[in-house]
Amino acid sequence: MHFTSEQRLDEGVHERRFTLGEIPGILWTPASASGPAPLILIGHPPLGLRTMYPRLAGRARYYASQYGFAAATIELPGSGDRPRWPAAEQARADLRRAMEAGEPVGDEIVAALVLPLVDRAVPEWQSALDALLTLPEIGGPVGYEGGVISIGVRLAVVEPRIAAAGFFAGSLVPAAVFEEARQVTIPLHVLLQWDDERNDRQASLDLFDAFGSQEKTLHANLGGHTGVPQFELETGARFFARHLR
Amino acid sequence: MHFTSEQRLDEGVHERRFTLGEIPGILWTPASASGPAPLILIGHPPLGLRTMYPRLAGRARYYASQYGFAAATIELPGSGDRPRWPAAEQARADLRRAMEAGEPVGDEIVAALVLPLVDRAVPEWQSALDALLTLPEIGGPVGYEGGVISIGVRLAVVEPRIAAAGFFAGSLVPAAVFEEARQVTIPLHVLLQWDDERNDRQASLDLFDAFGSQEKTLHANLGGHTGVPQFELETGARFFARHLR
Repeated sequence: MHFTSEQRLDEGVHERRFTLGEIPGILWTPASASGPAPLILIGHPPLGLRTMYPRLAGRARYYASQYGFAAATIELPGSGDRPRWPAAEQARADLRRAMEAGEPVGDEIVAALVLPLVDRAVPEWQSALDALLTLPEIGGPVGYEGGVISIGVRLAVVEPRIAAAGFFAGSLVPAAVFEEARQVTIPLHVLLQWDDERNDRQASLDLFDAFGSQEKTLHANLGGHTGVPQFELETGARFFARHLR
Repeated sequence: MHFTSEQRLDEGVHERRFTLGEIPGILWTPASASGPAPLILIGHPPLGLRTMYPRLAGRARYYASQYGFAAATIELPGSGDRPRWPAAEQARADLRRAMEAGEPVGDEIVAALVLPLVDRAVPEWQSALDALLTLPEIGGPVGYEGGVISIGVRLAVVEPRIAAAGFFAGSLVPAAVFEEARQVTIPLHVLLQWDDERNDRQASLDLFDAFGSQEKTLHANLGGHTGVPQFELETGARFFARHLR
Protein backbone atom coordinates (compact mmCIF):
# COMPACT_ATOMS: atom_id res chain seq x y z
CA MET A 1 0.00 0.00 0.00
CA HIS A 2 1.45 3.34 -1.10
CA PHE A 3 0.13 6.65 0.10
CA THR A 4 -0.03 9.12 -2.76
CA SER A 5 -1.44 12.23 -1.10
CA GLU A 6 -2.71 13.46 2.21
CA GLN A 7 -4.64 16.37 3.64
CA ARG A 8 -6.25 17.56 6.86
CA LEU A 9 -9.99 18.06 6.58
CA ASP A 10 -12.32 19.92 8.91
CA GLU A 11 -12.35 18.73 12.50
CA GLY A 12 -8.81 17.43 12.07
CA VAL A 13 -9.80 14.34 10.10
CA HIS A 14 -6.81 13.01 8.17
CA GLU A 15 -7.53 11.94 4.56
CA ARG A 16 -4.95 9.90 2.67
CA ARG A 17 -5.18 8.56 -0.89
CA PHE A 18 -3.41 5.31 -1.53
CA THR A 19 -2.90 2.65 -4.17
CA LEU A 20 -2.86 -1.04 -3.48
CA GLY A 21 -1.27 -2.47 -6.60
CA GLU A 22 -3.48 -0.96 -9.30
CA ILE A 23 -6.41 -0.27 -6.97
CA PRO A 24 -6.90 3.32 -5.77
CA GLY A 25 -8.34 3.90 -2.33
CA ILE A 26 -8.92 6.50 0.37
CA LEU A 27 -8.34 6.27 4.10
CA TRP A 28 -9.76 8.63 6.70
CA THR A 29 -8.48 8.57 10.27
CA PRO A 30 -9.52 10.57 13.33
CA ALA A 31 -7.35 13.43 14.49
CA SER A 32 -6.87 12.34 18.04
CA ALA A 33 -7.03 8.62 18.60
CA SER A 34 -6.37 7.07 21.99
CA GLY A 35 -5.02 3.87 20.51
CA PRO A 36 -5.82 1.95 17.33
CA ALA A 37 -9.19 2.98 15.86
CA PRO A 38 -11.87 0.50 14.78
CA LEU A 39 -12.17 0.45 11.00
CA ILE A 40 -15.24 0.82 8.80
CA LEU A 41 -15.02 -0.25 5.18
CA ILE A 42 -17.30 2.00 3.15
CA GLY A 43 -18.86 0.24 0.20
CA HIS A 44 -20.50 1.98 -2.75
CA PRO A 45 -22.15 1.29 -6.11
CA PRO A 46 -19.87 0.90 -9.15
CA LEU A 47 -20.06 4.54 -10.23
CA GLY A 48 -16.42 5.40 -9.65
CA LEU A 49 -14.78 6.94 -6.60
CA ARG A 50 -14.67 10.37 -8.22
CA THR A 51 -18.46 10.46 -8.53
CA MET A 52 -19.06 8.90 -5.14
CA TYR A 53 -16.46 10.95 -3.25
CA PRO A 54 -18.74 13.59 -1.66
CA ARG A 55 -21.09 10.98 -0.20
CA LEU A 56 -18.32 8.63 0.95
CA ALA A 57 -16.20 11.40 2.44
CA GLY A 58 -19.23 12.80 4.24
CA ARG A 59 -19.86 9.48 5.95
CA ALA A 60 -16.16 8.89 6.69
CA ARG A 61 -15.68 12.34 8.20
CA TYR A 62 -18.71 11.85 10.41
CA TYR A 63 -17.45 8.47 11.64
CA ALA A 64 -13.95 9.81 12.27
CA SER A 65 -14.86 13.10 13.91
CA GLN A 66 -17.89 11.96 15.95
CA TYR A 67 -17.00 8.37 16.80
CA GLY A 68 -13.23 8.08 16.41
CA PHE A 69 -13.54 5.39 13.73
CA ALA A 70 -11.12 5.03 10.84
CA ALA A 71 -12.84 4.54 7.47
CA ALA A 72 -11.58 3.36 4.11
CA THR A 73 -12.85 2.71 0.63
CA ILE A 74 -11.38 1.33 -2.61
CA GLU A 75 -12.31 1.64 -6.27
CA LEU A 76 -14.39 -1.30 -7.50
CA PRO A 77 -13.09 -3.43 -10.37
CA GLY A 78 -14.37 -2.04 -13.66
CA SER A 79 -15.16 1.40 -12.19
CA GLY A 80 -13.43 4.79 -12.28
CA ASP A 81 -10.16 4.55 -14.16
CA ARG A 82 -9.90 0.79 -13.72
CA PRO A 83 -10.24 -1.39 -16.83
CA ARG A 84 -13.69 -2.59 -17.84
CA TRP A 85 -14.21 -6.20 -18.82
CA PRO A 86 -16.41 -7.14 -21.76
CA ALA A 87 -18.79 -9.49 -19.94
CA ALA A 88 -19.70 -6.77 -17.46
CA GLU A 89 -20.40 -4.29 -20.26
CA GLN A 90 -22.61 -6.93 -21.91
CA ALA A 91 -24.48 -7.62 -18.67
CA ARG A 92 -25.06 -3.89 -18.14
CA ALA A 93 -26.41 -3.57 -21.68
CA ASP A 94 -28.72 -6.56 -21.15
CA LEU A 95 -30.04 -5.03 -17.94
CA ARG A 96 -30.63 -1.66 -19.58
CA ARG A 97 -32.42 -3.30 -22.50
CA ALA A 98 -34.70 -5.33 -20.21
CA MET A 99 -35.55 -2.29 -18.09
CA GLU A 100 -36.20 -0.02 -21.05
CA ALA A 101 -38.43 -2.67 -22.58
CA GLY A 102 -40.30 -2.88 -19.28
CA GLU A 103 -39.50 -6.60 -19.09
CA PRO A 104 -38.98 -8.33 -15.78
CA VAL A 105 -35.25 -8.53 -14.99
CA GLY A 106 -34.58 -12.24 -14.64
CA ASP A 107 -32.06 -13.82 -12.29
CA GLU A 108 -29.87 -14.71 -15.26
CA ILE A 109 -29.28 -11.04 -16.09
CA VAL A 110 -28.81 -10.06 -12.44
CA ALA A 111 -26.39 -12.92 -11.80
CA ALA A 112 -24.35 -12.08 -14.92
CA LEU A 113 -24.13 -8.48 -13.76
CA VAL A 114 -23.49 -8.95 -10.05
CA LEU A 115 -21.68 -12.24 -9.44
CA PRO A 116 -18.51 -11.44 -11.43
CA LEU A 117 -18.32 -8.10 -9.61
CA VAL A 118 -18.69 -9.84 -6.25
CA ASP A 119 -16.13 -12.51 -7.21
CA ARG A 120 -13.57 -9.83 -8.10
CA ALA A 121 -14.33 -7.20 -5.49
CA VAL A 122 -14.40 -9.36 -2.37
CA PRO A 123 -10.76 -10.56 -2.55
CA GLU A 124 -9.74 -6.95 -3.22
CA TRP A 125 -11.54 -5.75 -0.11
CA GLN A 126 -9.78 -8.52 1.80
CA SER A 127 -6.36 -7.45 0.46
CA ALA A 128 -7.15 -3.87 1.42
CA LEU A 129 -8.10 -5.09 4.88
CA ASP A 130 -4.77 -6.95 5.19
CA ALA A 131 -2.88 -3.79 4.30
CA LEU A 132 -4.97 -1.40 6.40
CA LEU A 133 -4.67 -3.54 9.52
CA THR A 134 -0.86 -3.32 9.37
CA LEU A 135 -1.11 0.42 10.10
CA PRO A 136 -0.51 1.17 13.77
CA GLU A 137 -3.34 3.71 13.92
CA ILE A 138 -5.93 1.07 12.90
CA GLY A 139 -7.04 -1.91 14.96
CA GLY A 140 -9.88 -4.35 14.76
CA PRO A 141 -12.71 -4.99 14.87
CA VAL A 142 -13.92 -4.09 11.41
CA GLY A 143 -17.31 -3.10 10.05
CA TYR A 144 -18.56 -2.95 6.46
CA GLU A 145 -21.24 -0.53 5.37
CA GLY A 146 -22.84 0.69 2.20
CA GLY A 147 -24.15 -0.39 -1.11
CA VAL A 148 -23.71 -3.28 -3.44
CA ILE A 149 -25.36 -5.41 -0.81
CA SER A 150 -24.21 -8.57 -2.64
CA ILE A 151 -20.56 -7.65 -2.00
CA GLY A 152 -21.36 -7.00 1.65
CA VAL A 153 -23.16 -10.32 2.01
CA ARG A 154 -20.24 -12.28 0.55
CA LEU A 155 -17.75 -10.37 2.71
CA ALA A 156 -19.83 -11.01 5.82
CA VAL A 157 -19.78 -14.74 5.04
CA VAL A 158 -16.13 -15.24 4.05
CA GLU A 159 -14.26 -12.59 6.05
CA PRO A 160 -14.17 -13.35 9.78
CA ARG A 161 -12.54 -10.01 10.63
CA ILE A 162 -15.80 -8.24 9.76
CA ALA A 163 -17.75 -8.08 13.00
CA ALA A 164 -20.82 -6.08 11.97
CA ALA A 165 -22.31 -4.75 8.75
CA GLY A 166 -24.65 -2.00 7.67
CA PHE A 167 -26.35 -2.74 4.37
CA PHE A 168 -28.36 -0.61 1.99
CA ALA A 169 -31.19 -2.73 0.59
CA GLY A 170 -31.05 -3.23 -3.16
CA SER A 171 -33.04 -5.69 -5.17
CA LEU A 172 -30.48 -6.61 -7.83
CA VAL A 173 -29.51 -9.55 -5.66
CA PRO A 174 -28.86 -12.83 -7.48
CA ALA A 175 -30.55 -15.95 -6.13
CA ALA A 176 -27.10 -17.32 -5.29
CA VAL A 177 -26.40 -14.38 -2.98
CA PHE A 178 -29.83 -14.72 -1.44
CA GLU A 179 -28.79 -18.23 -0.41
CA GLU A 180 -25.49 -16.93 0.97
CA ALA A 181 -27.45 -14.47 3.11
CA ARG A 182 -28.69 -17.37 5.23
CA GLN A 183 -25.07 -17.99 6.28
CA VAL A 184 -24.56 -14.45 7.55
CA THR A 185 -24.38 -14.49 11.35
CA ILE A 186 -22.87 -11.11 12.31
CA PRO A 187 -25.06 -8.25 13.60
CA LEU A 188 -26.71 -6.36 10.75
CA HIS A 189 -28.20 -2.92 10.31
CA VAL A 190 -30.20 -2.72 7.08
CA LEU A 191 -31.54 0.47 5.50
CA LEU A 192 -34.53 0.25 3.20
CA GLN A 193 -36.04 3.13 1.27
CA TRP A 194 -39.77 2.41 1.33
CA ASP A 195 -40.51 4.01 -2.06
CA ASP A 196 -37.26 3.09 -3.79
CA GLU A 197 -38.00 3.32 -7.50
CA ARG A 198 -35.03 1.04 -8.29
CA ASN A 199 -35.86 -1.56 -5.70
CA ASP A 200 -38.52 -4.19 -5.10
CA ARG A 201 -39.73 -3.71 -1.54
CA GLN A 202 -40.88 -7.27 -1.01
CA ALA A 203 -37.58 -8.66 -2.30
CA SER A 204 -35.73 -6.52 0.23
CA LEU A 205 -37.99 -7.66 3.08
CA ASP A 206 -37.46 -11.27 2.00
CA LEU A 207 -33.69 -10.76 1.99
CA PHE A 208 -33.82 -9.22 5.48
CA ASP A 209 -35.84 -12.22 6.60
CA ALA A 210 -33.28 -14.62 5.09
CA PHE A 211 -30.23 -13.32 6.98
CA GLY A 212 -29.12 -15.86 9.57
CA SER A 213 -27.99 -13.22 12.10
CA GLN A 214 -29.39 -13.28 15.62
CA GLU A 215 -29.22 -9.50 15.78
CA LYS A 216 -30.56 -7.74 12.73
CA THR A 217 -32.40 -4.45 12.49
CA LEU A 218 -34.24 -3.06 9.48
CA HIS A 219 -34.70 0.69 9.25
CA ALA A 220 -37.27 1.57 6.62
CA ASN A 221 -37.76 5.22 5.75
CA LEU A 222 -40.18 6.92 3.47
CA GLY A 223 -38.71 8.16 0.23
CA GLY A 224 -36.83 7.17 -2.90
CA HIS A 225 -33.47 5.55 -3.57
CA THR A 226 -31.28 8.53 -2.72
CA GLY A 227 -33.53 9.91 0.01
CA VAL A 228 -32.01 8.19 3.05
CA PRO A 229 -32.59 10.66 5.91
CA GLN A 230 -29.53 12.29 7.42
CA PHE A 231 -30.36 10.92 10.87
CA GLU A 232 -29.70 7.36 9.68
CA LEU A 233 -26.01 8.20 9.50
CA GLU A 234 -26.17 8.61 13.25
CA THR A 235 -28.14 5.41 13.88
CA GLY A 236 -25.65 3.51 11.73
CA ALA A 237 -22.69 4.96 13.60
CA ARG A 238 -24.27 4.05 16.92
CA PHE A 239 -24.86 0.53 15.65
CA PHE A 240 -21.15 0.25 14.88
CA ALA A 241 -20.26 1.84 18.22
CA ARG A 242 -22.16 -0.97 19.94
CA HIS A 243 -20.36 -3.70 18.00
CA LEU A 244 -16.87 -2.40 17.25
CA ARG A 245 -15.72 -1.61 20.79
CA MET B 1 -55.47 16.88 38.88
CA HIS B 2 -54.51 15.95 42.42
CA PHE B 3 -51.07 14.72 43.33
CA THR B 4 -51.31 11.84 45.79
CA SER B 5 -47.66 10.94 46.38
CA GLU B 6 -44.20 11.87 45.26
CA GLN B 7 -40.68 10.50 45.43
CA ARG B 8 -37.21 11.17 44.10
CA LEU B 9 -35.84 8.32 41.99
CA ASP B 10 -32.25 7.67 40.90
CA GLU B 11 -30.63 10.46 38.92
CA GLY B 12 -32.94 12.96 40.59
CA VAL B 13 -36.00 12.08 38.50
CA HIS B 14 -39.16 13.23 40.24
CA GLU B 15 -42.06 10.75 40.23
CA ARG B 16 -45.51 11.92 41.22
CA ARG B 17 -48.71 9.88 41.35
CA PHE B 18 -51.89 11.74 40.58
CA THR B 19 -55.59 11.27 40.03
CA LEU B 20 -57.58 13.02 37.39
CA GLY B 21 -61.17 12.50 38.53
CA GLU B 22 -61.27 8.72 38.93
CA ILE B 23 -58.28 8.09 36.64
CA PRO B 24 -54.94 7.33 38.30
CA GLY B 25 -51.76 8.43 36.60
CA ILE B 26 -48.03 8.94 37.05
CA LEU B 27 -45.86 11.89 36.08
CA TRP B 28 -42.07 11.83 35.82
CA THR B 29 -40.11 15.08 35.49
CA PRO B 30 -36.40 15.70 35.13
CA ALA B 31 -34.42 16.92 38.11
CA SER B 32 -32.91 20.00 36.57
CA ALA B 33 -34.93 21.56 33.79
CA SER B 34 -33.89 24.78 32.12
CA GLY B 35 -37.45 25.81 31.38
CA PRO B 36 -40.61 23.83 30.61
CA ALA B 37 -39.82 20.26 29.48
CA PRO B 38 -41.31 18.64 26.38
CA LEU B 39 -43.81 15.94 27.38
CA ILE B 40 -44.04 12.31 26.27
CA LEU B 41 -47.27 10.45 26.90
CA ILE B 42 -46.40 6.80 27.52
CA GLY B 43 -49.06 4.42 26.24
CA HIS B 44 -49.36 0.78 27.26
CA PRO B 45 -51.54 -2.30 26.78
CA PRO B 46 -54.58 -2.66 29.06
CA LEU B 47 -52.84 -4.78 31.68
CA GLY B 48 -53.07 -2.28 34.53
CA LEU B 49 -50.53 0.31 35.66
CA ARG B 50 -49.39 -1.89 38.54
CA THR B 51 -48.29 -4.65 36.14
CA MET B 52 -46.84 -2.26 33.59
CA TYR B 53 -45.07 0.00 36.11
CA PRO B 54 -41.49 -1.38 35.78
CA ARG B 55 -41.46 -1.06 31.99
CA LEU B 56 -43.16 2.35 31.93
CA ALA B 57 -41.00 3.79 34.70
CA GLY B 58 -37.86 2.47 33.01
CA ARG B 59 -38.70 4.35 29.84
CA ALA B 60 -39.81 7.50 31.68
CA ARG B 61 -36.65 7.62 33.81
CA TYR B 62 -34.51 7.24 30.73
CA TYR B 63 -36.34 10.08 28.94
CA ALA B 64 -36.16 12.35 31.99
CA SER B 65 -32.57 11.69 33.01
CA GLN B 66 -30.96 11.43 29.56
CA TYR B 67 -33.07 13.84 27.49
CA GLY B 68 -34.75 16.17 29.97
CA PHE B 69 -38.24 15.14 28.84
CA ALA B 70 -41.22 14.93 31.17
CA ALA B 71 -43.26 11.74 30.78
CA ALA B 72 -46.71 10.75 31.95
CA THR B 73 -49.09 7.84 31.80
CA ILE B 74 -52.65 7.14 32.91
CA GLU B 75 -54.62 4.00 33.70
CA LEU B 76 -56.72 2.84 30.75
CA PRO B 77 -60.49 2.53 31.15
CA GLY B 78 -61.36 -1.00 32.29
CA SER B 79 -57.84 -1.73 33.55
CA GLY B 80 -56.20 -1.85 36.98
CA ASP B 81 -58.73 -0.82 39.65
CA ARG B 82 -60.98 0.95 37.19
CA PRO B 83 -64.43 -0.55 36.54
CA ARG B 84 -64.80 -3.11 33.74
CA TRP B 85 -67.66 -2.84 31.30
CA PRO B 86 -69.58 -5.90 30.15
CA ALA B 87 -69.12 -5.47 26.41
CA ALA B 88 -65.34 -5.39 26.81
CA GLU B 89 -65.39 -8.57 28.87
CA GLN B 90 -67.53 -10.19 26.19
CA ALA B 91 -65.17 -9.06 23.40
CA ARG B 92 -62.16 -10.39 25.30
CA ALA B 93 -63.90 -13.74 25.76
CA ASP B 94 -64.76 -13.87 22.06
CA LEU B 95 -61.15 -13.16 21.12
CA ARG B 96 -59.84 -15.82 23.50
CA ARG B 97 -62.32 -18.39 22.16
CA ALA B 98 -61.35 -17.67 18.54
CA MET B 99 -57.65 -17.87 19.29
CA GLU B 100 -57.93 -21.07 21.30
CA ALA B 101 -59.99 -22.63 18.52
CA GLY B 102 -57.29 -21.60 16.04
CA GLU B 103 -59.88 -19.65 14.08
CA PRO B 104 -58.96 -16.48 12.21
CA VAL B 105 -59.79 -13.44 14.33
CA GLY B 106 -62.24 -11.47 12.21
CA ASP B 107 -62.48 -7.70 12.10
CA GLU B 108 -65.81 -7.88 13.94
CA ILE B 109 -64.14 -9.33 17.04
CA VAL B 110 -61.16 -6.95 16.83
CA ALA B 111 -63.41 -3.93 16.36
CA ALA B 112 -65.63 -4.93 19.30
CA LEU B 113 -62.53 -5.26 21.47
CA VAL B 114 -60.55 -2.23 20.39
CA LEU B 115 -62.91 0.51 19.21
CA PRO B 116 -64.75 1.02 22.53
CA LEU B 117 -61.36 1.18 24.28
CA VAL B 118 -60.13 3.78 21.78
CA ASP B 119 -63.37 5.77 22.04
CA ARG B 120 -63.05 5.95 25.84
CA ALA B 121 -59.29 6.25 26.22
CA VAL B 122 -58.59 9.04 23.73
CA PRO B 123 -60.70 11.74 25.45
CA GLU B 124 -59.09 10.71 28.76
CA TRP B 125 -55.60 11.16 27.32
CA GLN B 126 -56.72 14.55 26.06
CA SER B 127 -58.02 15.56 29.50
CA ALA B 128 -54.75 14.41 31.03
CA LEU B 129 -52.92 16.52 28.47
CA ASP B 130 -55.03 19.56 29.36
CA ALA B 131 -54.14 19.13 33.02
CA LEU B 132 -50.46 18.31 32.51
CA LEU B 133 -49.89 21.33 30.27
CA THR B 134 -51.09 23.66 33.04
CA LEU B 135 -48.03 22.67 35.12
CA PRO B 136 -45.26 25.27 34.84
CA GLU B 137 -42.54 22.58 34.54
CA ILE B 138 -44.15 21.13 31.38
CA GLY B 139 -44.39 22.79 27.99
CA GLY B 140 -45.19 21.67 24.52
CA PRO B 141 -44.61 20.04 22.15
CA VAL B 142 -45.96 16.63 23.06
CA GLY B 143 -45.10 13.12 21.88
CA TYR B 144 -47.03 9.88 22.31
CA GLU B 145 -45.29 6.54 22.46
CA GLY B 146 -46.10 2.95 23.22
CA GLY B 147 -48.61 0.25 22.72
CA VAL B 148 -52.26 0.02 21.82
CA ILE B 149 -51.34 1.42 18.45
CA SER B 150 -55.04 2.07 17.73
CA ILE B 151 -55.20 4.58 20.59
CA GLY B 152 -52.04 6.24 19.28
CA VAL B 153 -53.43 6.46 15.75
CA ARG B 154 -56.64 8.10 16.90
CA LEU B 155 -54.74 10.53 19.16
CA ALA B 156 -52.39 11.42 16.31
CA VAL B 157 -55.40 12.25 14.13
CA VAL B 158 -57.59 14.17 16.58
CA GLU B 159 -55.10 15.82 18.95
CA PRO B 160 -53.12 18.64 17.29
CA ARG B 161 -50.87 19.11 20.34
CA ILE B 162 -49.22 15.74 19.59
CA ALA B 163 -46.29 16.54 17.31
CA ALA B 164 -44.66 13.13 16.91
CA ALA B 165 -45.45 9.54 17.84
CA GLY B 166 -43.58 6.30 18.44
CA PHE B 167 -45.77 3.25 17.87
CA PHE B 168 -45.32 -0.39 18.70
CA ALA B 169 -46.72 -2.45 15.85
CA GLY B 170 -49.65 -4.65 16.84
CA SER B 171 -51.97 -6.48 14.54
CA LEU B 172 -55.22 -6.22 16.48
CA VAL B 173 -56.01 -3.12 14.49
CA PRO B 174 -59.62 -2.74 13.35
CA ALA B 175 -60.22 -1.88 9.70
CA ALA B 176 -61.71 1.45 10.83
CA VAL B 177 -58.43 2.41 12.52
CA PHE B 178 -56.48 1.26 9.47
CA GLU B 179 -58.46 3.87 7.52
CA GLU B 180 -57.74 6.52 10.16
CA ALA B 181 -54.01 5.78 9.76
CA ARG B 182 -54.12 7.38 6.30
CA GLN B 183 -55.01 10.69 8.00
CA VAL B 184 -51.96 10.66 10.28
CA THR B 185 -49.48 13.29 9.14
CA ILE B 186 -47.09 13.75 12.10
CA PRO B 187 -43.61 12.15 12.09
CA LEU B 188 -43.73 8.50 13.15
CA HIS B 189 -41.27 6.03 14.57
CA VAL B 190 -42.67 2.49 14.41
CA LEU B 191 -41.18 -0.55 16.14
CA LEU B 192 -41.90 -3.99 14.72
CA GLN B 193 -40.81 -7.28 16.26
CA TRP B 194 -40.04 -9.47 13.24
CA ASP B 195 -41.02 -12.75 14.92
CA ASP B 196 -43.87 -11.42 17.03
CA GLU B 197 -45.98 -14.43 17.90
CA ARG B 198 -48.99 -12.18 18.66
CA ASN B 199 -48.70 -10.13 15.54
CA ASP B 200 -49.15 -10.57 11.81
CA ARG B 201 -46.04 -9.19 10.14
CA GLN B 202 -47.67 -8.36 6.84
CA ALA B 203 -50.54 -6.55 8.55
CA SER B 204 -48.01 -4.40 10.39
CA LEU B 205 -46.11 -3.61 7.19
CA ASP B 206 -49.41 -2.71 5.50
CA LEU B 207 -50.29 -0.40 8.38
CA PHE B 208 -46.89 1.29 8.19
CA ASP B 209 -47.46 1.75 4.48
CA ALA B 210 -50.89 3.27 5.10
CA PHE B 211 -49.75 6.09 7.40
CA GLY B 212 -50.06 9.43 5.63
CA SER B 213 -46.96 10.93 7.29
CA GLN B 214 -44.18 12.38 5.18
CA GLU B 215 -41.61 11.27 7.73
CA LYS B 216 -42.07 7.75 8.99
CA THR B 217 -39.44 5.22 10.02
CA LEU B 218 -39.95 1.52 10.67
CA HIS B 219 -37.47 -0.23 12.95
CA ALA B 220 -37.82 -3.99 12.65
CA ASN B 221 -35.84 -6.16 15.03
CA LEU B 222 -35.45 -9.89 15.28
CA GLY B 223 -37.30 -11.48 18.16
CA GLY B 224 -40.69 -11.97 19.77
CA HIS B 225 -43.30 -9.61 21.17
CA THR B 226 -41.48 -8.63 24.34
CA GLY B 227 -37.98 -8.78 22.86
CA VAL B 228 -37.56 -5.16 21.74
CA PRO B 229 -33.80 -4.51 22.06
CA GLN B 230 -32.69 -2.06 24.72
CA PHE B 231 -31.00 0.16 22.13
CA GLU B 232 -34.38 1.03 20.59
CA LEU B 233 -35.14 3.07 23.70
CA GLU B 234 -32.30 5.32 22.62
CA THR B 235 -33.35 5.55 18.97
CA GLY B 236 -36.87 6.40 20.10
CA ALA B 237 -35.61 9.11 22.43
CA ARG B 238 -33.45 10.58 19.68
CA PHE B 239 -36.47 10.59 17.37
CA PHE B 240 -38.39 12.64 19.94
CA ALA B 241 -35.37 14.87 20.50
CA ARG B 242 -35.45 15.74 16.80
CA HIS B 243 -39.14 16.60 16.83
CA LEU B 244 -39.95 17.96 20.30
CA ARG B 245 -37.42 20.80 20.44
